[in-house]
Amino acid sequence: MKTLCDKFLSAKVRRLSPYVAGLQPREDGWIKLNTNENPYPPSPRVGEVLHKIDTSRLRLYPDAESGDLKRAIAAAGELFEAGLCEENLFCANSADDVLALAYMAFFSGKDKILTPDISYGFYPVWGEMHDAGMEFVPIGADFSIDAGAYKNGNGVVIANPNAPTSLALPLADIERILQQNPDGVVIIDETYIAFAREGSAVALVGRYKNLLITRTFSKSHGLAGLRVGYAIGQPHLIDGLRRARDAFNSYPLDLLAQTCAAAAVSDRDYFIETTGKIIATRERVIAELRKMGCRVISSQANFIFMESSDASALYDFLCENKILTRHWNKPPGLENFLRVSIGTDDEMEGFLQCVNRFLNGEPTKPL
Amino acid sequence: MKTLCDKFLSAKVRRLSPYVAGLQPREDGWIKLNTNENPYPPSPRVGEVLHKIDTSRLRLYPDAESGDLKRAIAAAGELFEAGLCEENLFCANSADDVLALAYMAFFSGKDKILTPDISYGFYPVWGEMHDAGMEFVPIGADFSIDAGAYKNGNGVVIANPNAPTSLALPLADIERILQQNPDGVVIIDETYIAFAREGSAVALVGRYKNLLITRTFSKSHGLAGLRVGYAIGQPHLIDGLRRARDAFNSYPLDLLAQTCAAAAVSDRDYFIETTGKIIATRERVIAELRKMGCRVISSQANFIFMESSDASALYDFLCENKILTRHWNKPPGLENFLRVSIGTDDEMEGFLQCVNRFLNGEPTKPL
Repeated sequence: MKTLCDKFLSAKVRRLSPYVAGLQPREDGWIKLNTNENPYPPSPRVGEVLHKIDTSRLRLYPDAESGDLKRAIAAAGELFEAGLCEENLFCANSADDVLALAYMAFFSGKDKILTPDISYGFYPVWGEMHDAGMEFVPIGADFSIDAGAYKNGNGVVIANPNAPTSLALPLADIERILQQNPDGVVIIDETYIAFAREGSAVALVGRYKNLLITRTFSKSHGLAGLRVGYAIGQPHLIDGLRRARDAFNSYPLDLLAQTCAAAAVSDRDYFIETTGKIIATRERVIAELRKMGCRVISSQANFIFMESSDASALYDFLCENKILTRHWNKPPGLENFLRVSIGTDDEMEGFLQCVNRFLNGEPTKPL
Repeated sequence: MKTLCDKFLSAKVRRLSPYVAGLQPREDGWIKLNTNENPYPPSPRVGEVLHKIDTSRLRLYPDAESGDLKRAIAAAGELFEAGLCEENLFCANSADDVLALAYMAFFSGKDKILTPDISYGFYPVWGEMHDAGMEFVPIGADFSIDAGAYKNGNGVVIANPNAPTSLALPLADIERILQQNPDGVVIIDETYIAFAREGSAVALVGRYKNLLITRTFSKSHGLAGLRVGYAIGQPHLIDGLRRARDAFNSYPLDLLAQTCAAAAVSDRDYFIETTGKIIATRERVIAELRKMGCRVISSQANFIFMESSDASALYDFLCENKILTRHWNKPPGLENFLRVSIGTDDEMEGFLQCVNRFLNGEPTKPL
C-alpha cells in the first residue's frame, strides 16, 4: 500500500533500506553490550573544558575547519610520527558523517566500489543513497578478507578491524589493496583500530595518494554521545571532502564538540589506560568463553564475535536478563553468531554468568 | 588543468559550485555584521545546564530522535497553540543539515523544484548535489515574491523572510503556494521568522500535508556555534526525513547540542527580550540610514538590505574600518546592495558613523 509518506518521497529514499542502529534503552538497569560503546567515561579533561567554557562564544559560527581540534589530533603523537599534520585531517559530525561525505566526494555515480559482503551495515546504504555501484566481495568461511580479491576498483571501503567479525588485516594486505586499486580511493575505516594488534594505515598515508582513513572518537575516546569523526589522507583527498561538505552542511561540527574532542585527544595517558583495560577484559572474556566450550573469533576490536548453535535463543536469554547484545539473521553465516561489546569487568562477569546458565540449559522464560 | 583531487572526485562533486559562507575572522576587533549571527549570547540557562552536565553520559550514543529537545520545542508555546507536538518535529545538526536531508527525502531525482532566483545560496547547491532540477522563479524588481508564479511544482523551497532581501510573505501567500503545489513538498525556511511581522506558517501545518517548515537556533537563540536546526510538519513528512537521516548519519545531534538547545528554547522570556532588542535596533538603523538618504528595504529579518550606488566601494570602506558586511556581485540586481546583520546598538552606531563618513566622501585608503 502506498502511504502518504511515499507520495512525497524521492524514488531513491523510497527504495532504500535505511541502516538500523542498535537499541538504546532509556531506562536504567541494562548491561548494554550492543553498540560497541566504551564502558569508561571520557577523559576528565572533557569535563574540565566543558565546565569552564564561555557560552557567549556559542553565538558565533564555529570554525568550519575545526582547526584547534585538527591541531590537537595532529599533536597526539601517532600522526606526528608518521610525518602528518593538520592538512591531512578533515573533521565532521561522526565517522558516519565523514563516510557519507566521502561517498559523495569519491564514489557517487561510479561502479565497482569494492567492499566485503559482511561488514558495517551502513556501507551498502550509502551506496544506494549516493548512486555508488557497490560490488560485494565474499568474505572467507573463517570471516577473513582476501586482499587479492580487491583489484581494479573505482573505490574500496574496508573496516579494519572489520565489524562484526572483529578481525583485522595486516598492513601488508592494506598496502596490496592500495596498489591494486590505483584509480580509486581506498577507504580504511579505522573505527576499532585502537583495540587492534595490527598497525594503523596512518603509516601509509604519505606514500599512497588513494588512501583515506576514517576514525571516530565514539569507541576509543568514550565519546559516542559527542559525534566526532575524522579522516586522514593526503591534502587533495581532504580538499575533496571539503567540497562535499560545502555542498551539504558547511559547519558540520559545533564548538562544544570541537572543544571536548580536542581535550580528549590531548589526554594520551587516559586513552592508553582505558583502551588497555578494554583489551585486557576482552582477552579474559574470550578465554572464559572458550573454557565453556564456545568458539570465539580472536578479536582485535572492542567487541567479540562468538558462535552459538542457538545464537538467537542466547540473544533472547541475555535480553531477559537485561543484557543487550547484537544478533543478525542475515546475511547467511551471521545467524549463528552474537556480537558482544566489551563492557567493564563487572558487566562482563554478569554476561559470562548468564552465558554459563544458558549453556547449562536454564530455560528461556516466555516473553 | 585536472588536479590530483579531480582524478578521484565524483563527476557530481567536481562539477558543482560549493556554497561559500561569510568570512569568520579569528582575530579580535572586528564588528561582524556579515553572517547574521545574534549579537547577544544565548540564554543563561545554556551555561547552567552545560556547567552541571555529567560528562560520563557522553560515552553512550545520544538519543537519535532528540526526544527531550523535541518536547522542549513543543512546549515552548507556539507549537502547542497550533495543536502540534513532538511527532511534528525532526531535529538535526543545523537547519542546513535538515534542508539537505529534506532535499534527499523529497526532491532527489525530481524536476521542477521551484525557488526564487534570489535567495539563500545553498538552495541551488543542494539541487545539484541531490539531482533535483531547480526551476528559478524570477523575483520582482522590488525583490518581492509573486505567489502566483509558484504552481504545479514537484517541490518548492522559499525562505520566509527571504535572504538577502529581508522581505517576508504574508500567510495568505504561503497558503496559496501550498494549494498550488499539492503534489510537492513546500519547504518554508523560517530561519529569520523570529524577527518578522508576518506570522509563521506553523499555523498551517495541521491543514497542509505538503508543508514542511525549517528552523534554526542559530539566529533567534544566539546559538550559531551549536548547530541545531529542526523541521515542523505532519508525521508522514517527519518520517521521510527520518528515512533520509538513516541513510546518511543516524545520530545527527550530539548530547550537548540537544541539552543546550532544550535549555535555550525553554527560556521564552529571554528569547522575546533579545529578539525584541534586535528588532528595535533594526528599526532605528533603518531610520538613520534613510535620514542619510540611503534606500533600505523594510526588513523583517535580523539584517538589512541597503542600496548603494557604489556598494562594492562601501563594502571595502567598511572593511578597512574593521566592519564586515556581505556583498554579492551576482546575480544581477544584487551588486548595488549590501546585506548588513543587526549587531548591538554600539556596533550599529559604529556602522552608521562609518557609512556617514563614506557618504561624505572620505576617501578609501588603498588596501
